[in-house]
Amino acid sequence: MNALLNCNRGVETAYGADQFTATLAQAYSNFFEHQTFVFPVPTGTAGNGLALGAVTPPYGTIFCHERAHIVTTEAGAPEFYSGGGRLTLLPGEHEKISVAVLENGLRRHGIGNVHHMAVSALSLTQATEAGVVYELDELEELSAIAHRAGMKVHLDGARLANAMVHLVATPAEITWKAGVDILTFGTTKNGTMNAEAVITFDAAIAKVLSYMHKRAGHLCSKMRYMSAQLLSYLEDDLWRRNALQANQNAAKIANILAQCPDVQLVHPVHINEVFAILPPRLLEALRGKGIQLKPWSFQHKGQGHRMVMSYCDSADQIQQFEQICREAPAFIESTA
Amino acid sequence: MNALLNCNRGVETAYGADQFTATLAQAYSNFFEHQTFVFPVPTGTAGNGLALGAVTPPYGTIFCHERAHIVTTEAGAPEFYSGGGRLTLLPGEHEKISVAVLENGLRRHGIGNVHHMAVSALSLTQATEAGVVYELDELEELSAIAHRAGMKVHLDGARLANAMVHLVATPAEITWKAGVDILTFGTTKNGTMNAEAVITFDAAIAKVLSYMHKRAGHLCSKMRYMSAQLLSYLEDDLWRRNALQANQNAAKIANILAQCPDVQLVHPVHINEVFAILPPRLLEALRGKGIQLKPWSFQHKGQGHRMVMSYCDSADQIQQFEQICREAPAFIESTA
Amino acid sequence: MNALLNCNRGVETAYGADQFTATLAQAYSNFFEHQTFVFPVPTGTAGNGLALGAVTPPYGTIFCHERAHIVTTEAGAPEFYSGGGRLTLLPGEHEKISVAVLENGLRRHGIGNVHHMAVSALSLTQATEAGVVYELDELEELSAIAHRAGMKVHLDGARLANAMVHLVATPAEITWKAGVDILTFGTTKNGTMNAEAVITFDAAIAKVLSYMHKRAGHLCSKMRYMSAQLLSYLEDDLWRRNALQANQNAAKIANILAQCPDVQLVHPVHINEVFAILPPRLLEALRGKGIQLKPWSFQHKGQGHRMVMSYCDSADQIQQFEQICREAPAFIESTA
Amino acid sequence: MNALLNCNRGVETAYGADQFTATLAQAYSNFFEHQTFVFPVPTGTAGNGLALGAVTPPYGTIFCHERAHIVTTEAGAPEFYSGGGRLTLLPGEHEKISVAVLENGLRRHGIGNVHHMAVSALSLTQATEAGVVYELDELEELSAIAHRAGMKVHLDGARLANAMVHLVATPAEITWKAGVDILTFGTTKNGTMNAEAVITFDAAIAKVLSYMHKRAGHLCSKMRYMSAQLLSYLEDDLWRRNALQANQNAAKIANILAQCPDVQLVHPVHINEVFAILPPRLLEALRGKGIQLKPWSFQHKGQGHRMVMSYCDSADQIQQFEQICREAPAFIESTA
Repeated sequence: MNALLNCNRGVETAYGADQFTATLAQAYSNFFEHQTFVFPVPTGTAGNGLALGAVTPPYGTIFCHERAHIVTTEAGAPEFYSGGGRLTLLPGEHEKISVAVLENGLRRHGIGNVHHMAVSALSLTQATEAGVVYELDELEELSAIAHRAGMKVHLDGARLANAMVHLVATPAEITWKAGVDILTFGTTKNGTMNAEAVITFDAAIAKVLSYMHKRAGHLCSKMRYMSAQLLSYLEDDLWRRNALQANQNAAKIANILAQCPDVQLVHPVHINEVFAILPPRLLEALRGKGIQLKPWSFQHKGQGHRMVMSYCDSADQIQQFEQICREAPAFIESTA
Repeated sequence: MNALLNCNRGVETAYGADQFTATLAQAYSNFFEHQTFVFPVPTGTAGNGLALGAVTPPYGTIFCHERAHIVTTEAGAPEFYSGGGRLTLLPGEHEKISVAVLENGLRRHGIGNVHHMAVSALSLTQATEAGVVYELDELEELSAIAHRAGMKVHLDGARLANAMVHLVATPAEITWKAGVDILTFGTTKNGTMNAEAVITFDAAIAKVLSYMHKRAGHLCSKMRYMSAQLLSYLEDDLWRRNALQANQNAAKIANILAQCPDVQLVHPVHINEVFAILPPRLLEALRGKGIQLKPWSFQHKGQGHRMVMSYCDSADQIQQFEQICREAPAFIESTA
Repeated sequence: MNALLNCNRGVETAYGADQFTATLAQAYSNFFEHQTFVFPVPTGTAGNGLALGAVTPPYGTIFCHERAHIVTTEAGAPEFYSGGGRLTLLPGEHEKISVAVLENGLRRHGIGNVHHMAVSALSLTQATEAGVVYELDELEELSAIAHRAGMKVHLDGARLANAMVHLVATPAEITWKAGVDILTFGTTKNGTMNAEAVITFDAAIAKVLSYMHKRAGHLCSKMRYMSAQLLSYLEDDLWRRNALQANQNAAKIANILAQCPDVQLVHPVHINEVFAILPPRLLEALRGKGIQLKPWSFQHKGQGHRMVMSYCDSADQIQQFEQICREAPAFIESTA
Repeated sequence: MNALLNCNRGVETAYGADQFTATLAQAYSNFFEHQTFVFPVPTGTAGNGLALGAVTPPYGTIFCHERAHIVTTEAGAPEFYSGGGRLTLLPGEHEKISVAVLENGLRRHGIGNVHHMAVSALSLTQATEAGVVYELDELEELSAIAHRAGMKVHLDGARLANAMVHLVATPAEITWKAGVDILTFGTTKNGTMNAEAVITFDAAIAKVLSYMHKRAGHLCSKMRYMSAQLLSYLEDDLWRRNALQANQNAAKIANILAQCPDVQLVHPVHINEVFAILPPRLLEALRGKGIQLKPWSFQHKGQGHRMVMSYCDSADQIQQFEQICREAPAFIESTA
């Protein structure tokens, strides 16, 4: 918010041709240790749509997890931005695509068969929609397979900062060094107002994006506001501090829940998300203290909840959560 | 072929505005006992693409079976013709969608949720890709559910003639009387050269189709050749005789195979297709007589073969097949 | 900017389901004296693309002026959002479409001819790209012709506030009362940061828009920031004060220039834009005082400049401009 | 027609993987003296749409003549097949684009400006819609300019055979040797039933086409019928004899009309088309003999007629035409 006030002064040239945007490209190139092209967008949906559309022709198909955000909650943005492409869905625990599943999927699809669609991209979510992180060597192997099949590799990085912190990886290591061609870099979920970015390291893809970004209406005449947010996100390692705090808060919550024998943690807790099936009695106690959890459907495992930790959650709030878990009469009863 | 020679005379007005096309609309209206709009196309892929595109906006999704032809073998034609729509895949034995599966699928999708796509159409294949026929009351119930959700009902009728013969149903009963709004009427697989038709009973859909048909390049300047084929298909019940003969041939083959204890029939045999897993020894004997079967993958059940019977198959050929099955040493051995 | 600080407090439900968005719909319904559906977007390009895409099928064509912003500077946004539509270009002085030109264009196009595209929308810019305003009766007559041809009427209202002030018309009079079905309401050029809105009075169009808005990535998870800007724009008649001030400033500048015999005013000055061909000597004098004018190409009339007045321009600045015009030696000379 | 009867025998593998299609590629490679990829389509609209879509991304624009067939009569096929591209219209006498007009158009468009669309292709009609032929050096110069701007060069060759005969040029000279990357090769207007072909000399474009051709539904399961027509068209120089005869017939008609002082020939007669403004009295005499001419609009020059000569027109018919022109009382009168 302070970043915004600073840039609302002076008269800048419209349409991104201003100092903020130039500074933005430079800042992200430093961040990624590689020439980097940055396209600010207001939402993750816009980011994923543009990124995938830039590497997928209308007759192309994107391989992704069947529970990926681009499948379940983005209203067909990849199909829209590619102008008629298709998502080919792959299974996998914790919303992760394994090497075996990808290889099998490509074998069944048949590369170069015109009765199928052309394989165009592999989209991975890092961390996944289940809050689980691809290890660097997994990323590298998946990318290598995709590249051999003629596909580009896309990361949905809505929670990339949290994944980097978990892996203690540099921005370069988690992206281009692991074979990533293009990514959606989420910042909204980690601190900014309305600013995400499509990021690519490939000048040819960047050229395509520059036209698509404009015609979709995402090239703002007053781009400096969005650029300012994206800039301040990198400054003083704001992204890392926010993500680290949020991950640590989630680890604490997961630890507290793991102490409760009637709570089932559904996925490993790598980042700032905890997925769990809680007993009704605990849910009631939380509600009694004004804490409402977001219901979450776990397909075969049934209904549960998702808890997303923020860098804003205070030590006090976590302690209060722990106290409720400990003292909820239902819990005492159920361990009796 | 004779029909073609007849129409290669005189000078007709180009672009379908000729006596053949007018006659075509009339002939099909008689056939379906309803005002019918007919759009000739050269392939089933064009037919399904146009039909689904005419009832699916770019932000719409088509519910269909996960093994439907539009999913597996048409290279994304529905996505192309809808300009960015999506296929939502449903499971089901014998490539059939049950009422329960459709209802569950719609419930999970969530009608009117803008984070998902708008539900636009239900596409059923009659007979299915497994050669199995939807009963008339099944069709009616599925259509009613789809209509309540605001969807149009599409039939992929590549083998509709065979399904009609199996059901002893009239063209009206198997289409608009059962709630079908639009269909792809296949004739190539049952006798014509290169002529399929998109058929609708709805003037508003027909208006959309008229523009799409032209701009996709399917409105031929010398349409009379295609119209002539589609006309002759209906004449003297040619369609029925061809389909009946083909179905009967398949029933005979299925009956012969059912006598072999080492043969597994994978799907019920309703029309002119037999799906079976044959022992290597029988395959070898057939190959010895110059008969090659088309390999077919049955997902969980493994590899087998598909046999498609034609109205051209003679009684002699079938008798020869029976003899091979009876006399193949492997068969005798395996029942010993 | 103050509006933004006010809304950055508390925890709101994401995706527009918050008090700001509900208030927004209500505020705009009051403003337009009609049930109004509001879709915030970051740019005019997004707004025009979405609005035209919502009323144009892929096989449709939009009639518009050959110098309209959607033709010259939006990188094909209407083609993108319609999924393959076309702009049909019409001529006209001052970038205005006359009744005769529209009627002639429709006659030549041929309604219902499938060899052409389906007519879908008439897009008018109010005020036009030449800063000229359609009178209310002109709007009504053009809308009536478009509706008779089955087209929807769209306003590109990047400068609608300025046009309303010029016409002394109410928001209702300049839109739905004149037959407008959908409009892009520009606020960025009249005071906000990054907030424009697609506005429609038709629930069916709004339903289409709700899906398109989401899948294009314009439905922000933190929509309240954009909504806050759009709300504050209406409060205390901020829009009117800003527009009135800007229009008056332009009138003063136009008046000053009209006194210079060597200056040619190219278009009537209705709103806050002045289009003129200035002598080199005057341009030089302005440059000497640090005033750079934006070059503008007037097709047949050659090169000139566009001056856009803001509500921020002070009386001092205008007086300084007058003084330069008066005292520029070139001017004195040329009138000598 | 005889070619069709020959191929309706035996059982061929479906989907073009048959001897006819392989022979087709070889025959056209010989014809063009270059490796050639051939995609049969049923109409010129399909051919132009596919060809332009294969070289135009959704954000691309095709430069073409404002009276080109792809603009006036193909219902937006290029926009459909490109998934949202645009036609940029250029003027020019006799429906020809001159070097100066193309250069000026590109300069005004601005290469690489993301507020405009990316320039993707130059589409020329050879012979033009006015029946006029681009000389080989004109073709070469236009292609060179287009290539320098990063565009591909497309020929709409609905009447290419006639143009080749007029230029006494080889197929190689009129296409790839002159810089043409892709073309629509029309045969319907010169003898076949329903067979046109998209032809490219570029393997990368061919790969794109192979997917697009299938998903648009133009890859026929019984492709041999179409291939047979395209093959027989080349055999024994059938194309040349037909085109030569048609061109000569047109030259005779033009010559006859040139003798009539009250007839205005609107365009030079290079191929088999004659565009003329005929006096009412002559039209009446022709009608009296049962000859109806097709009305044609010549924009600024008013209404007239188009006469298209065929290789079927007999010497007798032409003599009859001459006699009418000579003897029509109106003609005698008007020269009196």
